[in-house]
Amino acid sequence: MKKVEQTVVVFMLLLPIVVSGQSADSRSDKPVFEGKNTLLKPEGYREWIFVGSSLGLAYSRTPGQGQGRNAELYHNVYINPSSYREYARTGKFPDGTMMVLELARSDVKSEPGLQGSYQKDFVALEASVKDSSRFEGAWAYFNFTEGGGKIKAKADPFPQNACWSCHHVNAATDHVFTQFYPVLRAVTPK
Amino acid sequence: MKKVEQTVVVFMLLLPIVVSGQSADSRSDKPVFEGKNTLLKPEGYREWIFVGSSLGLAYSRTPGQGQGRNAELYHNVYINPSSYREYARTGKFPDGTMMVLELARSDVKSEPGLQGSYQKDFVALEASVKDSSRFEGAWAYFNFTEGGGKIKAKADPFPQNACWSCHHVNAATDHVFTQFYPVLRAVTPK
Repeated sequence: MKKVEQTVVVFMLLLPIVVSGQSADSRSDKPVFEGKNTLLKPEGYREWIFVGSSLGLAYSRTPGQGQGRNAELYHNVYINPSSYREYARTGKFPDGTMMVLELARSDVKSEPGLQGSYQKDFVALEASVKDSSRFEGAWAYFNFTEGGGKIKAKADPFPQNACWSCHHVNAATDHVFTQFYPVLRAVTPK
Repeated sequence: MKKVEQTVVVFMLLLPIVVSGQSADSRSDKPVFEGKNTLLKPEGYREWIFVGSSLGLAYSRTPGQGQGRNAELYHNVYINPSSYREYARTGKFPDGTMMVLELARSDVKSEPGLQGSYQKDFVALEASVKDSSRFEGAWAYFNFTEGGGKIKAKADPFPQNACWSCHHVNAATDHVFTQFYPVLRAVTPK
C-alpha cells in the first residue's frame, strides 16, 4: 500500500472516533444497569442540564411529615443532556431519560449584613430513570445515599408504591415535576 | 492531483473543524463584547455548569435592605464550561471566565400536602466576566434585566463601586463566592 493511501486509511479509521467525540455527552449520559435492575451511580451529572432547585419541598399526607425530612434541604435537579435535547424537540421524555436529584443542606451564615439561605454541602443523591421495557409504569427511582452522607456506587429501585405513586399523581409531565422546573418549561415545544 | 491525494487533502481540511467540534462549548462559551465594554447576552447558559442556588441571599449594610430586594428570589448561578474545566485543573479562574446569575421568583403552592419553596419563573439575568486586560480589578458586572422582567440583548458594566466592591471584600476565591457553591469546591484542586 502506498504511503498516501495508508494515510487515507488512518484518517478514515480515526474519523468515526473524532466525530462521535462531538456528542460525547449523548453517548455517556445514559443509565447503566448491572444485573436485572441495579443502576450504577451516574457519572458527570454535575455537568448535565440543571432544571431547577427547591428548598424543603415535599409532598406529605400528614402536615409536618415531609417537613421533618426535607426542611432545610435544597433539591438540585439535573437531566441528562441527550434526553433534554429530545424533550426540547418533541415535548416527550424518551426512554433513557435520567434525572438526578442532589440534596444539599442549607445554611444561613451568621455574618454581618448577610441574609438569606445558601447551599452548604451535599448530603444525598437520588435518581429516576425512564425505561418502558424494563420498568412497569416506565419510571423507576433509586437512592444512592448511605449512612453518614456517603454515596454508594449502585442502587436497586424502590418498590413502585414509594416514589412512583407520588410522581404519577402529582407530576405535571409524565412523572416529571415540570411545574417546578422553569428551565424545562422554557424549552417545551408550543 | 490524484484522486486519493485529493481525498487526503479534504480530510486534512475537514479534520480541524471536526476536532474543534468536540469542544464546541469551549469555543462558544466565551464573553462577546461590542464596542468598548458592552457585553452581549450570553447564549446557551442554561446548558453551562450549574454551581449553586440560594434563596434570598444578599449582603446588605443595613438589615432589611437586601431583604427587600432579594427576599423570595432564587439565585441560580452558572459558569461557562471551558472556565469550569480550567478552574478544576488549576484552581484559578482564567480570563474569559463568565458567570451567569439567573433570578427566579419563589413560590409556595397552596396544595394539600405540598410544603416548601420552589422556582416559579425567571425575572432577571446578570453576569460577571473576568478579563484582566479589559477591566480594572479584572472583573466586571452586567445586568441584562429591563423593566417587566424583559431581558435585553446587551449591557454595559456597572461602575466598580457597585458589585465589584462587595465581591472583592466578601467572595472567598478571586471575586467568586465559592463559599456558596459546593459544586466548585468539589473540583478545587487540593
